[in-house]
Amino acid sequence: MPDSLQRPGVLDLDAQLVDDVSVLVEAGQRGMVLNLAADLHPADLALLMARLPTEQSHTAFSWLPDAQASEILLELSDSQRRDLLHTLQPERLRRLIDALDTDDAADVLSDMSDAQALHVLPDLADTHDVAALLEYDEESAGGIMAREFVSVPPEWTLEHVIEAVRQHASDIDDIYAVFVVGANDQLEGVVSLKDLMLAPADRPVRTVMDRDVITVGTDMDREEVARIMERYDLVSLPVVDATGGMVGRITIDDVVDVIREEAEEDIQIMSGGSGIEQPDDTVWAVSRGRLPWLLVGLFGAGLSGSVIGGFEVALEQAVVLATFIPIVTAMGGNVAVQSAAIAVQGLSSGDIWMDDLGRRILKEMGVALLNGIVLSLLLCSAVAVLNVGHVQLLIATLASTMLTVILVATTNGALVPFALKWLGIDPASAMGPFVTTLNDIIGLSIYFMYATLIYL
Amino acid sequence: MPDSLQRPGVLDLDAQLVDDVSVLVEAGQRGMVLNLAADLHPADLALLMARLPTEQSHTAFSWLPDAQASEILLELSDSQRRDLLHTLQPERLRRLIDALDTDDAADVLSDMSDAQALHVLPDLADTHDVAALLEYDEESAGGIMAREFVSVPPEWTLEHVIEAVRQHASDIDDIYAVFVVGANDQLEGVVSLKDLMLAPADRPVRTVMDRDVITVGTDMDREEVARIMERYDLVSLPVVDATGGMVGRITIDDVVDVIREEAEEDIQIMSGGSGIEQPDDTVWAVSRGRLPWLLVGLFGAGLSGSVIGGFEVALEQAVVLATFIPIVTAMGGNVAVQSAAIAVQGLSSGDIWMDDLGRRILKEMGVALLNGIVLSLLLCSAVAVLNVGHVQLLIATLASTMLTVILVATTNGALVPFALKWLGIDPASAMGPFVTTLNDIIGLSIYFMYATLIYL
Repeated sequence: MPDSLQRPGVLDLDAQLVDDVSVLVEAGQRGMVLNLAADLHPADLALLMARLPTEQSHTAFSWLPDAQASEILLELSDSQRRDLLHTLQPERLRRLIDALDTDDAADVLSDMSDAQALHVLPDLADTHDVAALLEYDEESAGGIMAREFVSVPPEWTLEHVIEAVRQHASDIDDIYAVFVVGANDQLEGVVSLKDLMLAPADRPVRTVMDRDVITVGTDMDREEVARIMERYDLVSLPVVDATGGMVGRITIDDVVDVIREEAEEDIQIMSGGSGIEQPDDTVWAVSRGRLPWLLVGLFGAGLSGSVIGGFEVALEQAVVLATFIPIVTAMGGNVAVQSAAIAVQGLSSGDIWMDDLGRRILKEMGVALLNGIVLSLLLCSAVAVLNVGHVQLLIATLASTMLTVILVATTNGALVPFALKWLGIDPASAMGPFVTTLNDIIGLSIYFMYATLIYL
Repeated sequence: MPDSLQRPGVLDLDAQLVDDVSVLVEAGQRGMVLNLAADLHPADLALLMARLPTEQSHTAFSWLPDAQASEILLELSDSQRRDLLHTLQPERLRRLIDALDTDDAADVLSDMSDAQALHVLPDLADTHDVAALLEYDEESAGGIMAREFVSVPPEWTLEHVIEAVRQHASDIDDIYAVFVVGANDQLEGVVSLKDLMLAPADRPVRTVMDRDVITVGTDMDREEVARIMERYDLVSLPVVDATGGMVGRITIDDVVDVIREEAEEDIQIMSGGSGIEQPDDTVWAVSRGRLPWLLVGLFGAGLSGSVIGGFEVALEQAVVLATFIPIVTAMGGNVAVQSAAIAVQGLSSGDIWMDDLGRRILKEMGVALLNGIVLSLLLCSAVAVLNVGHVQLLIATLASTMLTVILVATTNGALVPFALKWLGIDPASAMGPFVTTLNDIIGLSIYFMYATLIYL
């Protein structure tokens, strides 16, 4: 399809288009803007809105028909959406939210101020369902499920079931399967659209359904939900309450977003961020989110400094020792983070597991030994060539330090993620400032001990 | 469903089960092992195999019926699979691969040695399709697409189309949509199973199909494919060749794996790893993958060291200055990584973009100023309380250093990902050893400059 060639890539929304729309909005050319907008996918249109100056995006949004406007709401970032919702009249806000699936409506409401949400909620068509969803933790299966699904009793014929799908077709966008539900909402089986279409229409659905259904409880963490859908290649996953009654379903598109968000969260936590920082947060919010780790880092670096301070007499005797401080801390930090990264990855994907600890440590020590020898040889050769200080003593000090520090730091890196997981803390934080700081302190202590023993 | 309660969580395959199966395999209890295996999902069975001792997993695998064995192949890690394939007879290997979809068959073959792959390939039922897929780059749309899809001419009635789906139902697992293809394989539209089921059976498919189809070319990077499916909430995406003819389709389950793998790759690159290290790689391979970044780190740390060496005279005059070296490097490194993380995340999600650079830098400088003031105040108070060195001069030196270093490092952190992206390098590498090392050098130079000017 040549259409795909015209569609801008994910990261390159045409800058010319943004400029054109901006000029048209400024000139009040409502008709032309709506024409351009009609050709865009809601996701692209949301991106366009995000790149328009704030005032203009509000104007353009007010022009859009409800159906298009409600779809865009979902595609905006949280803060862009919050910003936009503030400008809407309650009546339009209600119409836009009513046009959404219940899970999306709950997401939008939970991002609004309590006052605004309470104002809109009672007037929604699905008030009951949306209010029920708002009760669940946003990070749980209940928080990401939708209340819309097609369910039928087991004795219905396929003809009946197809009629049920037909009735729901307009208000449920993604129907991948029909759920067969008995007394007390107990889930008895599931039938895919493919099977529904291919089996004879007069058969009861219970003879066609797959009885081996994977389900999750409402309180399961959404990250585990994502792992289950990923692992068992599911596109639709029923959610049950404590009594086993079916209360909702999660579709793959929600879970794709979860995987992306959790990965971003991990990367932020590893980098000493809050895990929830967004590119458009205010300076104030960003600063507050990052400060805690920086304080930990400052405190740790202070301890490292006091290790050096403790060896001030040694340093006064041989100030050349100061030259190697960054090498000791950098190498310790680098190898620790490398070995922590693979442990975090393996723990999170299930490729490695708690019982595996001993074998992993041994392997990491093998890697550390190999790399430690290479790095020590290089460093010592450099010292020899540059003829720094009392060369032979310095080489002996540095070689002992590098090997010990690399072994200890690698082991730390491999160990800490397991320890954190055991303590119920996200293993990804192992790669944050905490571990590098710890390694600085240990590395410098080792270095000055060897220096005192060998060099002085 | 109580079934879900019995199913082990993603990360907690019952250790007792592994022990039981191990004992049964050792005792040659084929029947009992197959009974246990029959109750497990292929993904769980693969995990079980991975946790059995190697010899036992080979034995158990040899007992499994072809259908189950071929499904397990897909769920194993690359190295586990390679290990297992070596033990198979060519005839069984051929049967197992024939049971797979073409994209999965191509994946399995591309992981085998060339000799083994060439031995099996010509005898496959889908030789032509699998060989065609092997031509594509593994990281491209062509490399992850399957050749199996249901396509029909535009003039067929829905009744006809349903019949076509029926014929393919057994050899294509996931049918979400039927592709409507005209002359020269040109894609004209797509029709979802839902629409197929709900519209009157005598209508031509062209009157029901959605003409606005999103497609990708065979050579698009698989990460961009993932972004497109994610962005437009697609479960199935047609792939076209250079002439616009449809050659395959990608399904959401493949893309979920891509998202996970790319996130892991980013995390490894940020941690100074190779990006492709797997938990079960050999010590040798791991060591070789990590060494390059360590060498960069060593070289950089050597430069940092030589900055200190350059101020050796200053240090000799006031050895107390050495105490603050770890604080300067740690703080610079921490703030740089924090600001790089959010830039990398925003660039990769499309929430921020190249034109946005000036605004981002300003914002990061605001954050740096706020946090820099807090951290400087704390550090200076600590120096005052502990009464270190010539307190007032030291405080002036440290306050100037901290503010400058934090401002410069934050700006670097925000800037480097943009620079790397502009150069066509993965922005995630901005958070690796390269940037922290660069910041060490800059930070130490600033520190000793101020120290020379103010303190000495």
